[in-house]
Amino acid sequence: MSDNSFGRLLRVTTFGESHGPAIGCVVDGCPPGIALAPGDFAHDLSRRATGKTRHTSQRHEADEVEILSGVFEGRTTGTPIALLVRNTDARSKDYANIASQFRPGHADYTYLHKYGIRDPRGGGRSSARETTMRVAAGVIARKWLAERHGIRVRACVSQVADLRPRGFDWDAVEANPFFWPDASQVPELETFMDALRKSGDSAGARVHVQALGVPPGWGEPVYGKLDAEIAAGMMSINAVKGVEIGAGFASVAQKGSEHRDLMSPDGFASNHAGGILGGISSGQPIEVSVAFKPTSSLRLPGATVDTAGQATQVVTTGRHDPCVGLRAPPICEAMLALVLMDHALRHRAQNADVVSLAPTVPGGRG
Amino acid sequence: MSDNSFGRLLRVTTFGESHGPAIGCVVDGCPPGIALAPGDFAHDLSRRATGKTRHTSQRHEADEVEILSGVFEGRTTGTPIALLVRNTDARSKDYANIASQFRPGHADYTYLHKYGIRDPRGGGRSSARETTMRVAAGVIARKWLAERHGIRVRACVSQVADLRPRGFDWDAVEANPFFWPDASQVPELETFMDALRKSGDSAGARVHVQALGVPPGWGEPVYGKLDAEIAAGMMSINAVKGVEIGAGFASVAQKGSEHRDLMSPDGFASNHAGGILGGISSGQPIEVSVAFKPTSSLRLPGATVDTAGQATQVVTTGRHDPCVGLRAPPICEAMLALVLMDHALRHRAQNADVVSLAPTVPGGRG
Amino acid sequence: MSDNSFGRLLRVTTFGESHGPAIGCVVDGCPPGIALAPGDFAHDLSRRATGKTRHTSQRHEADEVEILSGVFEGRTTGTPIALLVRNTDARSKDYANIASQFRPGHADYTYLHKYGIRDPRGGGRSSARETTMRVAAGVIARKWLAERHGIRVRACVSQVADLRPRGFDWDAVEANPFFWPDASQVPELETFMDALRKSGDSAGARVHVQALGVPPGWGEPVYGKLDAEIAAGMMSINAVKGVEIGAGFASVAQKGSEHRDLMSPDGFASNHAGGILGGISSGQPIEVSVAFKPTSSLRLPGATVDTAGQATQVVTTGRHDPCVGLRAPPICEAMLALVLMDHALRHRAQNADVVSLAPTVPGGRG
Amino acid sequence: MSDNSFGRLLRVTTFGESHGPAIGCVVDGCPPGIALAPGDFAHDLSRRATGKTRHTSQRHEADEVEILSGVFEGRTTGTPIALLVRNTDARSKDYANIASQFRPGHADYTYLHKYGIRDPRGGGRSSARETTMRVAAGVIARKWLAERHGIRVRACVSQVADLRPRGFDWDAVEANPFFWPDASQVPELETFMDALRKSGDSAGARVHVQALGVPPGWGEPVYGKLDAEIAAGMMSINAVKGVEIGAGFASVAQKGSEHRDLMSPDGFASNHAGGILGGISSGQPIEVSVAFKPTSSLRLPGATVDTAGQATQVVTTGRHDPCVGLRAPPICEAMLALVLMDHALRHRAQNADVVSLAPTVPGGRG
Repeated sequence: MSDNSFGRLLRVTTFGESHGPAIGCVVDGCPPGIALAPGDFAHDLSRRATGKTRHTSQRHEADEVEILSGVFEGRTTGTPIALLVRNTDARSKDYANIASQFRPGHADYTYLHKYGIRDPRGGGRSSARETTMRVAAGVIARKWLAERHGIRVRACVSQVADLRPRGFDWDAVEANPFFWPDASQVPELETFMDALRKSGDSAGARVHVQALGVPPGWGEPVYGKLDAEIAAGMMSINAVKGVEIGAGFASVAQKGSEHRDLMSPDGFASNHAGGILGGISSGQPIEVSVAFKPTSSLRLPGATVDTAGQATQVVTTGRHDPCVGLRAPPICEAMLALVLMDHALRHRAQNADVVSLAPTVPGGRG
Repeated sequence: MSDNSFGRLLRVTTFGESHGPAIGCVVDGCPPGIALAPGDFAHDLSRRATGKTRHTSQRHEADEVEILSGVFEGRTTGTPIALLVRNTDARSKDYANIASQFRPGHADYTYLHKYGIRDPRGGGRSSARETTMRVAAGVIARKWLAERHGIRVRACVSQVADLRPRGFDWDAVEANPFFWPDASQVPELETFMDALRKSGDSAGARVHVQALGVPPGWGEPVYGKLDAEIAAGMMSINAVKGVEIGAGFASVAQKGSEHRDLMSPDGFASNHAGGILGGISSGQPIEVSVAFKPTSSLRLPGATVDTAGQATQVVTTGRHDPCVGLRAPPICEAMLALVLMDHALRHRAQNADVVSLAPTVPGGRG
Repeated sequence: MSDNSFGRLLRVTTFGESHGPAIGCVVDGCPPGIALAPGDFAHDLSRRATGKTRHTSQRHEADEVEILSGVFEGRTTGTPIALLVRNTDARSKDYANIASQFRPGHADYTYLHKYGIRDPRGGGRSSARETTMRVAAGVIARKWLAERHGIRVRACVSQVADLRPRGFDWDAVEANPFFWPDASQVPELETFMDALRKSGDSAGARVHVQALGVPPGWGEPVYGKLDAEIAAGMMSINAVKGVEIGAGFASVAQKGSEHRDLMSPDGFASNHAGGILGGISSGQPIEVSVAFKPTSSLRLPGATVDTAGQATQVVTTGRHDPCVGLRAPPICEAMLALVLMDHALRHRAQNADVVSLAPTVPGGRG
Repeated sequence: MSDNSFGRLLRVTTFGESHGPAIGCVVDGCPPGIALAPGDFAHDLSRRATGKTRHTSQRHEADEVEILSGVFEGRTTGTPIALLVRNTDARSKDYANIASQFRPGHADYTYLHKYGIRDPRGGGRSSARETTMRVAAGVIARKWLAERHGIRVRACVSQVADLRPRGFDWDAVEANPFFWPDASQVPELETFMDALRKSGDSAGARVHVQALGVPPGWGEPVYGKLDAEIAAGMMSINAVKGVEIGAGFASVAQKGSEHRDLMSPDGFASNHAGGILGGISSGQPIEVSVAFKPTSSLRLPGATVDTAGQATQVVTTGRHDPCVGLRAPPICEAMLALVLMDHALRHRAQNADVVSLAPTVPGGRG
């Protein structure tokens, strides 16, 4: 169905297949007057890109963004912004053999059941290549959130397999290829990833995403809750199997007296809620945790069936990431930014006239 | 904003406050010809209701459903079905004092920031009373899914505080007030709950939800994925802080060779995916896990601020659940059923003509 | 499908059948803080009601509105406002015989084709009784538009059969039962209507609707244009067969030099555009004209088929309006008000920060 | 706001400005398996194109469609279909002077009020160039309607200024540059158009659109009525000021006994309803009439104000159509086809299981 759009007032529609001529998106609803140039997209697309280190897929995509519409003399005009990225390193021959079999853990089987037809080249529409355009659209949202509201969105990898950060320093995150918050563990991670790659197997990862500076009041009860739409946005990313807000599943084992974040004129005493109460932002940092499964594209053979229903073995020889979660932080940031900007617009639609009667309790740091 | 509706083709709009005259919903998009009578709602509403045991809130609501429209001579006509439930046991005086202070962990503070006005009686719109209408709407979805597709949706509590089921028997679930799958632990749970209630504190819970019999092909890539919308639906329920599909967060520590569900003509070898691949159902059971935080309404005093911004203490003396998760299984079932029915309709809109070319791999039991 | 809602940010969902227990609506997205009481609805509902003069249907409905939610201490809270009107004068026996035949010009045939089932009592969902709730919802929009923006919405009947106003005086409109702008023609209209009623036949009417005080800038290109949504809103009213904006069909025979509304610092020289350019309001009065067909419920026999496909004759003996257009002005006003309020909210969502660089050209009088 | 999309299940999003790098669209929700190639678009785009005769604008656009996604090995896959058309003959210098003044009858004034910024090159987003992509998207809808349902959509010009067809022959329509149904009048039209062009003025036109073969049952009461959405679609086309269904405004002067279309087992006796009853198709031809105003881009000087609010004169020297309605039939066909295909999908979503109990009354010829 027509479900390739995300957001209500800031509406992003993506299109394109992994090995088709191009991928792209239309960002509709962006306010006018925002400075925007093709160069704005390079940084985040590069953070997400493959082929930069030996720890990711060796596909090399230029990921150059062409702005097709919606910008005049360097500023958005309020009309739809179309962004286009040509696919340049699409080796479809790598995928010739998978047209006739279903890779376990992939969408091959379900797409064919759903549509009766599928584009097998690189996974077609189900490829994570689609997330490139989420990151591109997210650039616009991040710019607007930063310029209008001073909001900062950032993410790190907070678990790989069973490795967890021993220390936590946001400044370390962008200084290593693993988005890892403890610089001292980077050699350990490199060793782990090298061994993983050689084994032909793959690993899962957990990504932590945070937004700082979100004012209280964003989020739309009861089905457009901020956390509900964050959950949908994150779960719509390829390979995601779980989403937590604030304390998440740990809150099951908490007492109410421990979980509830007490308030005083000096601020909130804790942030187990993850910055959202009743589906509405509280002014505290928004805290989200996302589980990425290990990719199912392995050099290790796996039992499956072919399109004739016969038993067979699949071995993936294409260029794949041994840990897709390691490229996910920019994608998670983009999704959180898109949800937040959409909610900023939704909030002011209904509540632009509201004079808040509530005192502001400081939200604290992230 | 106008976000009190859920679903795209089966669209449920709920309305009503905890202590207003009534709560209700409009179910728009239900196919014609489904048998429906007021009595159909009693069973599930009773499973969700308070006041049946000492372990839940002592508010007694009749929860009688009046069908206002959309049904003629006992069958749905394809026009909107409006359901109405009058509030009968609304003791607003219990809440008089909370109008001037913000309960920690509640939506009082965020609602006032958002709207500049709030209905403090029983939490108003942010009360879990709203979920009554989700359960009512879910009854229609469950009927349709069962009759048309033989689908069964069920749920249990799979964790309370740090108590976990030792055994697992679906048949035990409906035979105790805790939706607990191991009958032998019921006395232990009763002791725990009695102590909890006396302590004035509260506990979290984890709910497991399952759908059996969903055919392969439901779900709409890439932003209307089945798992994305399940996540949104669950996260929109009061007190939910996390959602997992299949292996969920455990998949982070899995190897790809362990996580991917191998296939053979005899069926899938496992179900770590939780029945969803690429956002589309695979024919395996849909498996979802949901984290409910401990309620923040406690008899234990907690620091907060009042509406003038001054420090104060809050003590909740109203009738509250010490573990809201214990009443959540029918709500989670309803949300899953609503998502599934919506997706069934969406799938056939686009794909009614599709002749599936894929062989069917048995999905196995739940 | 789920198409019983109107509007994007101010979203009105109506439900109910002509002879069911009740009709109602949910107004979602109304800003908080608007004063609202049950009595606010009486005036407009009475203007639309049947049974006040011999020129309309003799059905007597109390049309008392109960506010079920969304209002606290006399003010809207930003949560959904549910309104309920019980049906009290539903004589279903009047309609017993039409269950087995299709009234020509009615929706009987198409509803049965669509749904395979229909509620024949008074036309069920296809009855103009549904428009009661449009008028009720419109009351909220009119209040908000008047209070926030000083906007006034009004309508008159500008043609009945081939009778047209000779003079035009807005002050006359509410002083006669025909919403007619020339008081001197009222006796002529009474004579015409008496003869029409006695003949058993019916007449069409044209309604002119106007909004004064709409600021420039409302309307969303290119598919949410203000005129596009006004057209949809009007055409969704029962019996409407045509909609014009400004000069409408007369613009076909105009020269461009005649049609285009010249501008000067003193204002627009004319208003052939009807207050909308490029789908966006220009600050001039919004001018809309709507064609209502003559009702097909006649005492004169008409050839049709029965539900078995056999030829038969239909004679309508129920209580019907000989000219449905005579009750339509309040409905058209409501639809225009709902579209305008929705667009006001949409405009500020995207453009709240816009500093208009355009000089304001006076829009002139209506 | 995010209103550059049309349709609910077949959802078309267009983007692009008249003189930007490209225009394009994303068609989301198209069923899989439809044969589609770039060449399919040429015929209809050529019918709409400028520069073919002296009677239209002399802008020459190649209008070559690139399919960027959604098609694999010549068939749609069910994923979004992105279409791209590069702008090649954009002479922005023609428009340099209009950046500082408001053309009367154009959207210059309203866009600047709305957005505080505008792209003046060729009207930017408000240019009729956007309709190119409607025609392109409409090609897909027309193919699907024809192949699946045998539906044919066609249009003609039925009035230019005060010239009306004396005879009516659908076969004549595509044989002259005026889409005129009476071949004998073509010389008269040429003379009229030549004189009009020389005068520097412009003329309006009326377009008649028809769909043959639509089965009974399409259309979604009460706000998604087939006629309501046709009206919205037509009114969203540049320069449209009025829409009629069936008898349209003529129904005002009809008696009910004349207007209602009597039925017999042999078929409907007339089609004043225009093929739609209660918002649902009746199986008769869908008949729609659309009013196009005369373009406001004239060589004749006109009074206006500049962006500083000072009085000035505007003279349009760019390449413009003296009668935009003459290029509108393919656009109106496209919009009708898009609405119909969307409704076909919506109908089967809810009603795929319906066994119609209604006998079928022949709908007759167009």
